Amino acid sequence: MEPRLVRDMLERVRTGELAVEEALEALRGLPFRDLGVATVDHHRALRQGVPEVIFGEGKTPEQIALIAQEISGAGQNVLVTRVDAAKGAAVASLLPAFRYVPLARTGTVEVAPTPKRAAGPVAVVTAGTSDVPVAEEAIETLRAVGLEAKRLYDVGVAGLHRFLHRVEELRKASAVIVVAGMEGALPSVVGGLVAAPVVAVPTAVGYGAALGGFTALFCMLTSCASGVAVVNIDSGFGAAMVVHRMLPKE
Amino acid sequence: MEPRLVRDMLERVRTGELAVEEALEALRGLPFRDLGVATVDHHRALRQGVPEVIFGEGKTPEQIALIAQEISGAGQNVLVTRVDAAKGAAVASLLPAFRYVPLARTGTVEVAPTPKRAAGPVAVVTAGTSDVPVAEEAIETLRAVGLEAKRLYDVGVAGLHRFLHRVEELRKASAVIVVAGMEGALPSVVGGLVAAPVVAVPTAVGYGAALGGFTALFCMLTSCASGVAVVNIDSGFGAAMVVHRMLPKE
Amino acid sequence: MEPRLVRDMLERVRTGELAVEEALEALRGLPFRDLGVATVDHHRALRQGVPEVIFGEGKTPEQIALIAQEISGAGQNVLVTRVDAAKGAAVASLLPAFRYVPLARTGTVEVAPTPKRAAGPVAVVTAGTSDVPVAEEAIETLRAVGLEAKRLYDVGVAGLHRFLHRVEELRKASAVIVVAGMEGALPSVVGGLVAAPVVAVPTAVGYGAALGGFTALFCMLTSCASGVAVVNIDSGFGAAMVVHRMLPKE
Amino acid sequence: MEPRLVRDMLERVRTGELAVEEALEALRGLPFRDLGVATVDHHRALRQGVPEVIFGEGKTPEQIALIAQEISGAGQNVLVTRVDAAKGAAVASLLPAFRYVPLARTGTVEVAPTPKRAAGPVAVVTAGTSDVPVAEEAIETLRAVGLEAKRLYDVGVAGLHRFLHRVEELRKASAVIVVAGMEGALPSVVGGLVAAPVVAVPTAVGYGAALGGFTALFCMLTSCASGVAVVNIDSGFGAAMVVHRMLPKE
Amino acid sequence: MEPRLVRDMLERVRTGELAVEEALEALRGLPFRDLGVATVDHHRALRQGVPEVIFGEGKTPEQIALIAQEISGAGQNVLVTRVDAAKGAAVASLLPAFRYVPLARTGTVEVAPTPKRAAGPVAVVTAGTSDVPVAEEAIETLRAVGLEAKRLYDVGVAGLHRFLHRVEELRKASAVIVVAGMEGALPSVVGGLVAAPVVAVPTAVGYGAALGGFTALFCMLTSCASGVAVVNIDSGFGAAMVVHRMLPKE
Amino acid sequence: MEPRLVRDMLERVRTGELAVEEALEALRGLPFRDLGVATVDHHRALRQGVPEVIFGEGKTPEQIALIAQEISGAGQNVLVTRVDAAKGAAVASLLPAFRYVPLARTGTVEVAPTPKRAAGPVAVVTAGTSDVPVAEEAIETLRAVGLEAKRLYDVGVAGLHRFLHRVEELRKASAVIVVAGMEGALPSVVGGLVAAPVVAVPTAVGYGAALGGFTALFCMLTSCASGVAVVNIDSGFGAAMVVHRMLPKE
Amino acid sequence: MEPRLVRDMLERVRTGELAVEEALEALRGLPFRDLGVATVDHHRALRQGVPEVIFGEGKTPEQIALIAQEISGAGQNVLVTRVDAAKGAAVASLLPAFRYVPLARTGTVEVAPTPKRAAGPVAVVTAGTSDVPVAEEAIETLRAVGLEAKRLYDVGVAGLHRFLHRVEELRKASAVIVVAGMEGALPSVVGGLVAAPVVAVPTAVGYGAALGGFTALFCMLTSCASGVAVVNIDSGFGAAMVVHRMLPKE
Amino acid sequence: MEPRLVRDMLERVRTGELAVEEALEALRGLPFRDLGVATVDHHRALRQGVPEVIFGEGKTPEQIALIAQEISGAGQNVLVTRVDAAKGAAVASLLPAFRYVPLARTGTVEVAPTPKRAAGPVAVVTAGTSDVPVAEEAIETLRAVGLEAKRLYDVGVAGLHRFLHRVEELRKASAVIVVAGMEGALPSVVGGLVAAPVVAVPTAVGYGAALGGFTALFCMLTSCASGVAVVNIDSGFGAAMVVHRMLPKE
Repeated sequence: MEPRLVRDMLERVRTGELAVEEALEALRGLPFRDLGVATVDHHRALRQGVPEVIFGEGKTPEQIALIAQEISGAGQNVLVTRVDAAKGAAVASLLPAFRYVPLARTGTVEVAPTPKRAAGPVAVVTAGTSDVPVAEEAIETLRAVGLEAKRLYDVGVAGLHRFLHRVEELRKASAVIVVAGMEGALPSVVGGLVAAPVVAVPTAVGYGAALGGFTALFCMLTSCASGVAVVNIDSGFGAAMVVHRMLPKE
Repeated sequence: MEPRLVRDMLERVRTGELAVEEALEALRGLPFRDLGVATVDHHRALRQGVPEVIFGEGKTPEQIALIAQEISGAGQNVLVTRVDAAKGAAVASLLPAFRYVPLARTGTVEVAPTPKRAAGPVAVVTAGTSDVPVAEEAIETLRAVGLEAKRLYDVGVAGLHRFLHRVEELRKASAVIVVAGMEGALPSVVGGLVAAPVVAVPTAVGYGAALGGFTALFCMLTSCASGVAVVNIDSGFGAAMVVHRMLPKE
Repeated sequence: MEPRLVRDMLERVRTGELAVEEALEALRGLPFRDLGVATVDHHRALRQGVPEVIFGEGKTPEQIALIAQEISGAGQNVLVTRVDAAKGAAVASLLPAFRYVPLARTGTVEVAPTPKRAAGPVAVVTAGTSDVPVAEEAIETLRAVGLEAKRLYDVGVAGLHRFLHRVEELRKASAVIVVAGMEGALPSVVGGLVAAPVVAVPTAVGYGAALGGFTALFCMLTSCASGVAVVNIDSGFGAAMVVHRMLPKE
Repeated sequence: MEPRLVRDMLERVRTGELAVEEALEALRGLPFRDLGVATVDHHRALRQGVPEVIFGEGKTPEQIALIAQEISGAGQNVLVTRVDAAKGAAVASLLPAFRYVPLARTGTVEVAPTPKRAAGPVAVVTAGTSDVPVAEEAIETLRAVGLEAKRLYDVGVAGLHRFLHRVEELRKASAVIVVAGMEGALPSVVGGLVAAPVVAVPTAVGYGAALGGFTALFCMLTSCASGVAVVNIDSGFGAAMVVHRMLPKE
Repeated sequence: MEPRLVRDMLERVRTGELAVEEALEALRGLPFRDLGVATVDHHRALRQGVPEVIFGEGKTPEQIALIAQEISGAGQNVLVTRVDAAKGAAVASLLPAFRYVPLARTGTVEVAPTPKRAAGPVAVVTAGTSDVPVAEEAIETLRAVGLEAKRLYDVGVAGLHRFLHRVEELRKASAVIVVAGMEGALPSVVGGLVAAPVVAVPTAVGYGAALGGFTALFCMLTSCASGVAVVNIDSGFGAAMVVHRMLPKE
Repeated sequence: MEPRLVRDMLERVRTGELAVEEALEALRGLPFRDLGVATVDHHRALRQGVPEVIFGEGKTPEQIALIAQEISGAGQNVLVTRVDAAKGAAVASLLPAFRYVPLARTGTVEVAPTPKRAAGPVAVVTAGTSDVPVAEEAIETLRAVGLEAKRLYDVGVAGLHRFLHRVEELRKASAVIVVAGMEGALPSVVGGLVAAPVVAVPTAVGYGAALGGFTALFCMLTSCASGVAVVNIDSGFGAAMVVHRMLPKE
Repeated sequence: MEPRLVRDMLERVRTGELAVEEALEALRGLPFRDLGVATVDHHRALRQGVPEVIFGEGKTPEQIALIAQEISGAGQNVLVTRVDAAKGAAVASLLPAFRYVPLARTGTVEVAPTPKRAAGPVAVVTAGTSDVPVAEEAIETLRAVGLEAKRLYDVGVAGLHRFLHRVEELRKASAVIVVAGMEGALPSVVGGLVAAPVVAVPTAVGYGAALGGFTALFCMLTSCASGVAVVNIDSGFGAAMVVHRMLPKE
Repeated sequence: MEPRLVRDMLERVRTGELAVEEALEALRGLPFRDLGVATVDHHRALRQGVPEVIFGEGKTPEQIALIAQEISGAGQNVLVTRVDAAKGAAVASLLPAFRYVPLARTGTVEVAPTPKRAAGPVAVVTAGTSDVPVAEEAIETLRAVGLEAKRLYDVGVAGLHRFLHRVEELRKASAVIVVAGMEGALPSVVGGLVAAPVVAVPTAVGYGAALGGFTALFCMLTSCASGVAVVNIDSGFGAAMVVHRMLPKE
């Protein structure tokens, strides 16, 4: 594609349609455009309804509103993650199009609805109810990339029967995101029961030896169920993006 | 399927073909067969040419040979991981069908060739040459599940040009496994340049602040390139299994 | 018991009392009921007066009140742990039957008094006065499972005489829960003096090298008094449940 | 009892049967005998067939043989833990009565067979085969205190069906010792399925994020199955002693 | 002494002056009194003007006031450590005799002035001005045990000349307490320059790699100047008590 | 120089111009003046326009104002670092000459403008916008030592093209300060692209496995780009001072 | 320069001198050549006598010899770091031009002598004699980049006088590399005494709380002497490369 | 003293007895001698029989022999610590006067017997027999500084009666060194029972949660017995030097 564009331009230089200086200017950008994958991804993403994502933590409401406005002004949907309620309200007051989702601690500016993708629903499983906010961040992110989610909440390992009861649902999922804090054992059980991709998200739920999520993280990394992919603590967003990468883009 | 079997059995109880006690006995096993997912996976895996995997560390050559013989005797391929050269030789002397791959520190007993899957090759990228053994473990595992690998070795971040030179190859891969020790920065760069699934494997390469692979691990978990899946330190096997789960099984 | 139920059902299928489809439906649930241990435990627990326990941390007062109401509505006592004073008040305003215990940071909804068990009192020992809230959480939990507690507070190792003075009381206990922060040495001394089960609870009391309870935790795990059982930092609840498991249920 | 002895002695002083100096001498020992619990335990233990235990690590074969000889010379059984094969052979050559158990890395000198206790068998469960040596140390220790063990090996969480298949056996156990490395999730599942006491032993099995056993340890401490007692990494001995304390001594 | 008391009592039993039951009662307490060292220390301390110390952290103002009143009511001085300003004010309002020292975050109730001890002044040195509160806690504690302090503040290693300028003063001290955060290098320099006892107190001053005082702590423990004694992070109290133990008590 | 002064003094003692006692007094101070390097640096710094720096954390506004006034009263510029907005306002109200820079969390009292140094501008690069405050602290410090800065913000590794776009600017810099949180990979890329000195500043930006900046710190210390100098987490000040030392002082 | 080349090429396209396809091909390579900085650095380095560096750890002698031969065959000097004695001998036997330096654990293949640079000698200071190997690695690296070193060994903080004795030598250095293990306090003292660039190298010397070099590392990062640059534990090579970057290249 | 020497020298300059250049030369050394405390300490130490100490770890036998010979050649005793058996033999073969003590892993070269100091014996207490080597290092060091030791070995907390039995001996000690691994609880008990200085030495004895001595270290630092001084893990030498500093030097 890009080679074609360059060939066209060169043809136009040859025929005199394009001045050398103009071509030079265009080519000056070329290396960066050629390598500037983010830009290209940006365009492709736009066509696919994938939003730009803003990491909300450590940014002021003003900064978030400004960046979100610029992106949405360019016709692209915006997803903002890790925004607490107060900051969410502040952004919304600055940018009325900003829709805040308290449970997920995310916000969006939707220029156009994201087209649904062909892939089946992604199962989002939590060990407990305290893991739900992280799961909801994953679900908001999935929604933003055109994927549907199926919730299976509070089916932790200690009450195995509730979980086994719903294995069939898990087996139908195109991918499974497992969100668990404390000892983080659920992905091992899920990974042993389903053949689909399993993405494990450790959460900071628990105290003492839960180590703010690191016990769950290390537990998931050493899972005896092979092929479990792991993301950062509390990163529902990260898990959804792993799934986004692995499922067909259309 | 299973419901059908139960219905048949119940019909035979109703018609007197099957004694109550016999049906009771059959049903006693049912829950476990119904839940006994590993067994079912085992069968499906067999059809798909997925081998059983033996974690070789902490097992004696005798144990490995015994288990491998039992599995291969049942007509299934075997993959053994984390076997050092001495243990590999000992297993081979006990089990002549055992093929040891020194660079990957793996061994296999192949009853039948694994059928190739439709998915395109998986790019396996390393930051340095010391990461190669972990990459080769991933490649041996990919091979065992019917996937082809494409090697891109020693293209670390500090010499970016060598890496950029080969971006096009990366973009064609069905998935990318990135193996890196020390500061583990390569997956961030890869994740920013390709849209395919990226699985990052930290390695214990480096010293001091490399923390035996934990710096690379944490680096990968906090990558600013979103959607990077992470596995345990040095787990080329784990990365290949993540890829195995996400690519079409046929 | 369950086999008897299945046999009865099969008999009724044989005699035509029960339609195949109805039996199928009942059996469909069987595996889960058969494995659904939590459900079975739930029933047994109910008979024994063991309450359901809600982990209060990271739940809203509304969630706690809702779950507690559902459980107590089913005729079962409820224990809620790790509830701070403000949340306790909020739950109580939503659910008047909720009794909050500030010192233990727990709350209960008692449908019926828990029957006392035959086992003798459990000694609950603290090294200092700052360990008392964790001890009280243990005592509230013991009470909820029908066990009586005997308090021995502030008998730390540095003032050994106060402790030795009360060894006789310790020796009469059916089990000893030892709660200690800082260097966590008390369980070693208790374990050396009594033959009864000893459950050690590290607390986050102390600063600097106390590591928020991890020094006490590791100290207890490496105790030179053999047979000391350890639970998570600050988990008075966990210690009481260990004792609950080991003492006769009636 | 002891008060009775003192009263007798005082009576004999009063009646002149016992000289003041003799009584003084006897009383001089009293505090220590009264407090000298190890000594008293020693006697009681002797009657109960509980052996003295020697921690073999960091002791020379000569030291072990010397201590073991002194104890056994006093008519008491001896258990030595954490003895590698070479040291075991060295001790045996010095002390022929020393019986070394390679798998458990323990050794014993049995003066007389330990009387069996009334309690039912203790289930000893491992997640994998690499956890077996730690399990065997537990079993050797159980044997030394008169308790019988039932082995359930290699029933890890990822292959849940094998485990569920044997739940009934677990439910019959007087206590369950669960030995697991890597992510250490098995005790959570066991704790959810049985009401008996559960003692969890983390092992150093695994690599990278397994943290030499600490991931399993922290996982067990934060188990969502309440009432799981935890001991030090690799301490099969410690788990057995926890069980020893909690089961009836006769 | 104690043997003499016992002999007397036995004599009185022999002569019938003392009833057996009375002697029994007295002897019952004996072991504990014999071992009840804290009580004995208590008395000796009282004579020496050493106060009882209350660890204020994690205690309510009411608890502190209550305990302090009991101790002071028994004629003994009281020192309370780790009391913030608000709590200090609350205690003072409950117990007017309570004198709060904001800079040291300590409070005292002085029944009688502590007699000065013969030992020369203790040099209390800080690396920076942020270390001063910890130094003042040490000084308040020294004062409470009858020792005088000499302040040398803000003489850190980076500006060595200010420190060297005052070496002569250090050499005259009966002991040196060195308080330092960040890299905690000052005790190494002091230890190399003076022959007196050096007690090092790490502080939580600094950020990032200062690790909340652990870098200073480990630095002091590995000091190349031999014979530096170390106490817990921020424990000015602990350092003063080390000095208290080592200097002559009169 | 100093030897000459001593020779002169000795000559004057020899000729009787100087009394022995006077010479003795002068010599007494000599060692300290000879070693009293900070003082000498102080003077040289004054000539070079380098300010005295006050670490604002853990100091009261009164202390900061007092010290700043003393230094500025002596004709020297003052830089105060790590001052939050409230403290900054408080200092300014006490010392009107105090100029507070909120973004950098620094303040200055400028007696005279710092002379510009000959060295070209220092590039200050950040991976993200959350790293900007640390970068601004570096820039304020550079300004205080007479160096100019060139900002390149938000050019992180995941969007490599934006960064590559500006490599030419980096190559012109006399030194590069790279500020990055999360996985801290940017210095590796920069170090591979430019030959100039590179000083890496990890920041606490990120969550979970970002470890409060330690992942970035360790990443930078193990960078595969050789010759990257590292400073403490969030220490923009430290990085600027490293650059200050390495660039020509005039 | 590059723009000029592109302009020329475009002119030649315009005039028909260059075919569109040929220009396309040239432009295709352009981005990589434009960004392919390592290649360019490689050339520049060659002119400057800077060797390519091979990290010897985790490479076989065969690999090292092969790479070293390829580089030296291209006319460039080679430096290999972290090579133990056995591996050094093995490489030398494969590649006779390989000169091994045991103390520094480095080896070189010198095609041509590295031209000396104009900068004055770099002082390389160690706290103890155990730090010498790391210092020698730094010196070998300095030599390889044309810089001279001046050794000041075993001048640790506890014996300050030996150090102060040589301050004048330090002040004359163009840069100072300070190598220290244990508490790593020396860079703070050096940084306070000299105005030159100071690069601190922590070493793994020491035991217990020395944490394998991390205590020294953190100590150096939190040094109260501002402007100390830090590199990885034991990385004499890294320190030398920091100095290499900061000193004039000719 | 030193002032007197300088005055004398100046007088001799005044009277012409001493040439200016000679005095200059003498004075050149003066600052360093004046500050060169190690030198002065060296002389004082010599008079007091305190040996120079060589840290044997990481030094070759040749280096140790060379340094030891130089020191002993100057008439001073030498103590070498942390020398394993093989190295000890190697040093002895190079330097026949070297006396190696295997249990303490130390060696000495005694030029003259160290004069005994007036202070009473130092009690050296260990929790277990595995702590003995560290205790013996302390005792060898005490011997080298003229102090006598009294051994109380294997009196750990779990068998309290053995310890209490010997409290009276502890109370007579001029100082107590307590050596303990595992949970390190013994210093708390000792500190509560005696008023003498207590120096605690953590050891690396234990496994798993013993953390190679860090659990004992942190335990000791947070001891509830106030005034316990702590030294580095396994540093019997360090503890002895702390005692050396605090006891009268004659």
